[in-house]
Amino acid sequence: MGILSKTGCYEYLAEPFHCDFSLRLQMGHLGNHLLNAADFHSNERGYGMTDLNPIHKTWVLSRLAVEMTDMPRAYDRFTVETWVESAMRYFTSRNFAISRTDGYVYGYGRSVWAMIDTDTRQPADIFKIRDGLITQYVETERECPIERASRVKMTGDEPLAHTLETRYSDVDVNGHINSIKYIDHVLDLFDIDFYSRYALRRFDIAYVAESYFGDRLQFYCAQAGENEYHVRITKISLCDKTETEVCRCRICFVER
Amino acid sequence: MGILSKTGCYEYLAEPFHCDFSLRLQMGHLGNHLLNAADFHSNERGYGMTDLNPIHKTWVLSRLAVEMTDMPRAYDRFTVETWVESAMRYFTSRNFAISRTDGYVYGYGRSVWAMIDTDTRQPADIFKIRDGLITQYVETERECPIERASRVKMTGDEPLAHTLETRYSDVDVNGHINSIKYIDHVLDLFDIDFYSRYALRRFDIAYVAESYFGDRLQFYCAQAGENEYHVRITKISLCDKTETEVCRCRICFVER
Repeated sequence: MGILSKTGCYEYLAEPFHCDFSLRLQMGHLGNHLLNAADFHSNERGYGMTDLNPIHKTWVLSRLAVEMTDMPRAYDRFTVETWVESAMRYFTSRNFAISRTDGYVYGYGRSVWAMIDTDTRQPADIFKIRDGLITQYVETERECPIERASRVKMTGDEPLAHTLETRYSDVDVNGHINSIKYIDHVLDLFDIDFYSRYALRRFDIAYVAESYFGDRLQFYCAQAGENEYHVRITKISLCDKTETEVCRCRICFVER
Repeated sequence: MGILSKTGCYEYLAEPFHCDFSLRLQMGHLGNHLLNAADFHSNERGYGMTDLNPIHKTWVLSRLAVEMTDMPRAYDRFTVETWVESAMRYFTSRNFAISRTDGYVYGYGRSVWAMIDTDTRQPADIFKIRDGLITQYVETERECPIERASRVKMTGDEPLAHTLETRYSDVDVNGHINSIKYIDHVLDLFDIDFYSRYALRRFDIAYVAESYFGDRLQFYCAQAGENEYHVRITKISLCDKTETEVCRCRICFVER
């Protein structure tokens, strides 16, 4: 049995320069904190990147959903708790709870991760890592009271809303476009006037393929409900000009 | 006499998703940490934003220079020390030292700040804040071994390198384009191939005017030396289409 608790808890500050004009933390920065919490939690327990990289394996974020009834305000101290809800051979589900230090809950997150072999880019068996160590940390008692990350049905008729050349600041340590940058770019499809009337309630993103520096990203966006938007991002490859789906998002707002 | 030390020291982690493809912290994220350190330091000592905002004053970053012999690598823990070097009626100089927790110094920063009245947007007298409280914290003993933030001479003949529409994620809590975002956008003028051959050594930025959501930013860039580039950013106002200088930058690289 692992010596650490199943749930990890990490404290953050809503940094003033990470907040938007409404004085609340931007979703992209919150998403970054969630990924950090996942990284710390798995590293501390022996199945994180620091253990996987030497054996040519890595975690790949497959889906992320974040649902917030409120967002931390500038200078709020808050915690991200994270735990593994389930582990299967090729996928694991990890949940998040985001709370103010006085216990008030801002919201929750859900994520799905795959493990891949970094040489072959093929799925790798999660249970083969340290004799299935991760299964010792599966937390089945704790609920995560938000819906699972949705698949996001696209009609294929969504109009092109924006085109973007990927740049240096978009690229992560692996040379891919940073998972969080897609969230920033999608939220940038809406203007300040929109954000002054609507607050972001929920963001779902399903990652389909990697994109790279120099790829041109295309954002297809359609309203799918009163306060719901669906966005498909594709990449136009720098090399062969083919268009490939990169990710799909569902964004739900509430009136302020 | 103030009860706190003149120098404040704040610890940070080079978060993996804040690092670039070379596994080193991106300058924009370092810049954000410096501004946070300045904010914490001044708030703790009674002349920060939390004291100024209720009396309708604020600090405005006028210049920032950061010179690094090395950059923190992913997962490095490092400290930002900051101290006020001098305080005059309308300007104050604040320095930074960025060190690994084992004492190794990555680099230094220098900054110049003005205080303004948020109602009139006119300069405000720094010495009138709490009877010149800041002067009790001026550190004259400690050296900052890098050149002062330069004025950056532009010829006016620099060619237009890039045009950018400002978006939601560019906007800070004051409704202005975030000071750090200019750094990100300027560094995005160079491609990954360039960064694989050159490392950023020094970044100087002088802020001239604010820009706002919806302004179109124009980036004029010229090589000014073997490894030195000058960039002028202007804004094309959404309202009257006039072009105004927003800031000037000098960027120095070294071969890797």
